Amino acid sequence: MTPFRAQRALRFGDCDPSGIAHFPAYFSLLVGVVEDFFASIGAPWPTMIQERRMGVPTVKLDVTFSAPSMFGDTVDWELRVAKVGRSSLTLHHGISRSGTPLWNATQVLVATTLNTNKSTAWPDDIRAMLNRHLTS
Amino acid sequence: MTPFRAQRALRFGDCDPSGIAHFPAYFSLLVGVVEDFFASIGAPWPTMIQERRMGVPTVKLDVTFSAPSMFGDTVDWELRVAKVGRSSLTLHHGISRSGTPLWNATQVLVATTLNTNKSTAWPDDIRAMLNRHLTS
Amino acid sequence: MTPFRAQRALRFGDCDPSGIAHFPAYFSLLVGVVEDFFASIGAPWPTMIQERRMGVPTVKLDVTFSAPSMFGDTVDWELRVAKVGRSSLTLHHGISRSGTPLWNATQVLVATTLNTNKSTAWPDDIRAMLNRHLTS
Amino acid sequence: MTPFRAQRALRFGDCDPSGIAHFPAYFSLLVGVVEDFFASIGAPWPTMIQERRMGVPTVKLDVTFSAPSMFGDTVDWELRVAKVGRSSLTLHHGISRSGTPLWNATQVLVATTLNTNKSTAWPDDIRAMLNRHLTS
Repeated sequence: MTPFRAQRALRFGDCDPSGIAHFPAYFSLLVGVVEDFFASIGAPWPTMIQERRMGVPTVKLDVTFSAPSMFGDTVDWELRVAKVGRSSLTLHHGISRSGTPLWNATQVLVATTLNTNKSTAWPDDIRAMLNRHLTS
Repeated sequence: MTPFRAQRALRFGDCDPSGIAHFPAYFSLLVGVVEDFFASIGAPWPTMIQERRMGVPTVKLDVTFSAPSMFGDTVDWELRVAKVGRSSLTLHHGISRSGTPLWNATQVLVATTLNTNKSTAWPDDIRAMLNRHLTS
Repeated sequence: MTPFRAQRALRFGDCDPSGIAHFPAYFSLLVGVVEDFFASIGAPWPTMIQERRMGVPTVKLDVTFSAPSMFGDTVDWELRVAKVGRSSLTLHHGISRSGTPLWNATQVLVATTLNTNKSTAWPDDIRAMLNRHLTS
Repeated sequence: MTPFRAQRALRFGDCDPSGIAHFPAYFSLLVGVVEDFFASIGAPWPTMIQERRMGVPTVKLDVTFSAPSMFGDTVDWELRVAKVGRSSLTLHHGISRSGTPLWNATQVLVATTLNTNKSTAWPDDIRAMLNRHLTS
């Protein structure tokens, strides 16, 4: 499958006194891209969280930063579905600027029931949506 | 060595509509704890960044979340110096609540020269400070 | 009454590429100070929000910034209760560094019922707590 | 003049445990909209800050919140230039959802010289750009 793609501007407020992007700001962008990905496949978070009472907390995150990005940069985001487990989802994120890799991340999320915060199997409809985007 | 310890309250603004801590907020706390650690050993960041023109960007971060934390929790932080390289520094973070592990992270930072964003060897004084806190 | 006092360090992540505190970061600090004030008078937000299903959204905020604060500054916070209405609360915030005023804010919050987001009268116990801190 | 318009989604990470947008998150959005406005008129902040060594700190901000916004809302932003002073700029922000006003703000920014953080007159080219967008 082609990856889910997004672009993000690194804003003034995302950068720190050393002049480069502040890494916690990257993770706010990452959560927003994952939120947009879920909406794009037909599983918007407001519905999942408020109506279906499901959560999708992150349980693992491995990140490598290879080049800094600067205030004013626009970055290209590629999100790939690497694995769909019973209740887990593994995503690969590759972030670059004009073709130069900046950082990448492997993220594992888990479907949970909000009332208990326990993991739960993906509902069939969402599992089918995720599987359609699985990178072969 | 004993670890560097800190406590942090999970505030209203650190938590999301699912009622648990929003993970990007954890990393703002993490950067603040690392900043406090550097100040505690005698290498405060304002001096490093503004006078010595050094940066300490993060180049690797591996995180495992084992239990959620909730709005109103106070968490206990343990930071350990695992390795001091020529220009790198490996830290282990263990975050718990009343003895229950919540999440842990291995973080690699690199000393850089701010003008070029290139890595540079730790200055002797800061290397000595870091080595004194190395976990044997 | 004496004001509620707090101190806050302006951290690396609170400052922007121009080297001064980023003003949205100030408001995260402000919400945290208000949260600490409510806890100090006996009305902690986790209990109010999760058990009593009350919210305290801000409906008005007037801010004047008179001097910038810099990365590395520690600021002194004074919060005063200016008025307790039927469902409203007016707070004055004065933020200074070593006696030099940096910024001040007048904030009006309103007690709401979370299910409807409509305003509601302060419960008697919380009203009594707030009145005890009213600046005469 | 027609106002500068933008749309912003209220993301998961912009909302708090009471289920509504966290107001400090609004101000991060506001700074981003102002940044986009300056870029749209030909005065991008990265150039202003890094090359011309100018800052545009906010000195006054008066905000009224009239209705909450919820996780999943998309809001419509209207920014109007109300006044261009020697070194100041007054902006009006009106934020609404499907025509319902949510909040509005009057913001005064000041042009500064970054090295001293003192106010400075708007350079002629930027003043001309701002004046072209003045609401008559």
